[in-house]
Amino acid sequence: MKPINGGVTAARGFSAAGVHCGIRKNKTKKDLALILSETPAAAACVYTQNLVKGAPIFVTRQNVADGYARAVICNSGNANTCNSNGIEIATRMCELLAEQAGLSPSDCIVASTGVIGQPLSIAPIQAAMPALVAALRHDEKGGRDAAEAIMTTDTVLKEIAFEFTLGGKTCRIGGIAKGSGMIHPNMATMLVFITTDAAVSPALLQQALSEDVTDTFNMISIDGDTSTNDMVSVLANGMAGNAMLSDAASEDFAAFRAALNAVTKHLCRAIAADGEGATKLLECIVTGAADQNTARRVAKAVICSSLVKAAMFGADANWGRVLCAIGYSGAAVDVGKIDVAFGSGAGLISVCESGAGVEFSEERAKQILSEKEIKLLVALNSGGASATAWGCDLTYDYVKINGDYRT
Amino acid sequence: MKPINGGVTAARGFSAAGVHCGIRKNKTKKDLALILSETPAAAACVYTQNLVKGAPIFVTRQNVADGYARAVICNSGNANTCNSNGIEIATRMCELLAEQAGLSPSDCIVASTGVIGQPLSIAPIQAAMPALVAALRHDEKGGRDAAEAIMTTDTVLKEIAFEFTLGGKTCRIGGIAKGSGMIHPNMATMLVFITTDAAVSPALLQQALSEDVTDTFNMISIDGDTSTNDMVSVLANGMAGNAMLSDAASEDFAAFRAALNAVTKHLCRAIAADGEGATKLLECIVTGAADQNTARRVAKAVICSSLVKAAMFGADANWGRVLCAIGYSGAAVDVGKIDVAFGSGAGLISVCESGAGVEFSEERAKQILSEKEIKLLVALNSGGASATAWGCDLTYDYVKINGDYRT
Repeated sequence: MKPINGGVTAARGFSAAGVHCGIRKNKTKKDLALILSETPAAAACVYTQNLVKGAPIFVTRQNVADGYARAVICNSGNANTCNSNGIEIATRMCELLAEQAGLSPSDCIVASTGVIGQPLSIAPIQAAMPALVAALRHDEKGGRDAAEAIMTTDTVLKEIAFEFTLGGKTCRIGGIAKGSGMIHPNMATMLVFITTDAAVSPALLQQALSEDVTDTFNMISIDGDTSTNDMVSVLANGMAGNAMLSDAASEDFAAFRAALNAVTKHLCRAIAADGEGATKLLECIVTGAADQNTARRVAKAVICSSLVKAAMFGADANWGRVLCAIGYSGAAVDVGKIDVAFGSGAGLISVCESGAGVEFSEERAKQILSEKEIKLLVALNSGGASATAWGCDLTYDYVKINGDYRT
Repeated sequence: MKPINGGVTAARGFSAAGVHCGIRKNKTKKDLALILSETPAAAACVYTQNLVKGAPIFVTRQNVADGYARAVICNSGNANTCNSNGIEIATRMCELLAEQAGLSPSDCIVASTGVIGQPLSIAPIQAAMPALVAALRHDEKGGRDAAEAIMTTDTVLKEIAFEFTLGGKTCRIGGIAKGSGMIHPNMATMLVFITTDAAVSPALLQQALSEDVTDTFNMISIDGDTSTNDMVSVLANGMAGNAMLSDAASEDFAAFRAALNAVTKHLCRAIAADGEGATKLLECIVTGAADQNTARRVAKAVICSSLVKAAMFGADANWGRVLCAIGYSGAAVDVGKIDVAFGSGAGLISVCESGAGVEFSEERAKQILSEKEIKLLVALNSGGASATAWGCDLTYDYVKINGDYRT
């Protein structure tokens, strides 16, 4: 497996586009994205678990029920959520795309992101559809335009692609993501669109995705708020020519999962690092847990703590807050066995051993915590399970961005 | 029942004091508090549920196991938590007080609040004990000094007292609280010391307190972080001369609970309004829930949402975030039945009906949300249960206070 340039257009047979259609007032901001596969693709999706769901979620779920899709249409600037005509609008988005691109409306994955509870007008989407389809490109620019068009408060475009081999055939997999705020582990809490030219059966594609998210997207938290709209989708069009993956126990399926995981892990880190107002990527690595769930629960509690996040912003080695978060995580841990260390590119420092503080140089700690990527290392010393969670620091700018989001 | 002046010294037979002993560097900040009852008092306590507990919690739990206590000793500036000699230090605090004040060490409730994981030296406490006991006063100043000495990042001193009647006898109840950050519903997440001269059996006192906190202190959230150290205690010394309350079904017990609730509710609102960096008190009132737990869960989810809190800071009527928080609260609600309105001293405005937005004046909403006390009114329209939760907005100053807390 090796990284290659591009995102959703890296795999054979996928084109993409992004345009400004006018949902946003800012004309320099693209707000409508399209990804298209030349041939029918196996499709797998996972969705937010919020009871309040965006209308596009309901429409997408129905459209991919048969296991196949050919296109993703997504707008930013308006979530199409808590609107009385939401389903109608999302359905119409699929119909307009289908007409223009020569597909069936049921081949479309539809998504929206932005403000909740503002009616979404179909007019700008309808007007822009011919130009959007005309703008489709198989090259890196097409993928990048689509990635741009799904961004909201994101400050960084998020895309990644890899090349890997299945049964001697070179396959490609790539993805784009948007995600910055309203992000908390509970599937999926952001938008992620992944394309691959590997041939994978719909059942195995869904299995791979559903299992992957447990340790990737479900382990990110920006602010503890689970969004209403978000999803991760994978389209696999088989144009790499490998023998269709349909055996969950095969080596090739393991290779596919590894490639998928490389994409999702990269996008996870990119989303966490670009958390609203963030200045630092936080990675909490929990080891020595009695079981996997304990490890995940502890890692998430630490990454979610506002107090830990604010301390990291201030490069303050206030490790008592890490212990405190572990203590209320709900995990059954032996507090007296916990070791905590902080690490970064500048080095590693132990701050707590067997549940009690150890002497350390505050100056050295400050130096380590002043880097852009911080590791919070928690050793529970009670077993062999481990887990990693990703988040970011809590800054003035988070409050600024969210104090007046709609205007 | 009527409000009277004072706090923990309002009830007969209680004196209190607060001094600077030197745990804090700032010599103008009192950091050691004492409350003393002239006679043995029934004692009830509830404690934090954090697995990581301050050493004083263990010592207090043992000391009040017999249902009685006479004194509360509490320092601020250091939580005496995650220290290898924590229990020894907390035990020693009780012994030193007992020697000086002529009590048994097992009559002492001991508490600490401040930074976690820094060794607490007994030296300044030992040196100050004679002066602390000598400073005891029965008047309002004594209570106020104690209230001052338990403050950490609090900006406002919190005390309240009421007069009420039991069997024709005038009784008094009053309390002080400290609490500003690391506050989240899970009993108790702050320090609250309550005194009363009513005669109440230890069993009934514990019942009254344990039941009360469910709808008071367990319904506050500042930042979602459950503290390691905190407790609510009530001392009832019986000096009002009423017949000992020992029947849970009696009218007098109901009157006592009402008085206790008046104290706790006031302190709840005071703690929420003084949340770290807060500019506004938020009160989420959920009505029409199918059951009490649903109502509580919904109210807490709304009050805990960083996105709702940041929107309130910006006086932005972004009600979609309220719906979103309800959606991920874990409560089983019918989203299509939810109404949301915002209220304050400036008026009331409906923003969402039957789960969808309604047209409203943004200008009017801004005016309403610019007040210091905001009500978020959520009608679930699915039953008769209701609940209230208290919190505050999320501001730049929260980040400032917590970015560099230890220095």
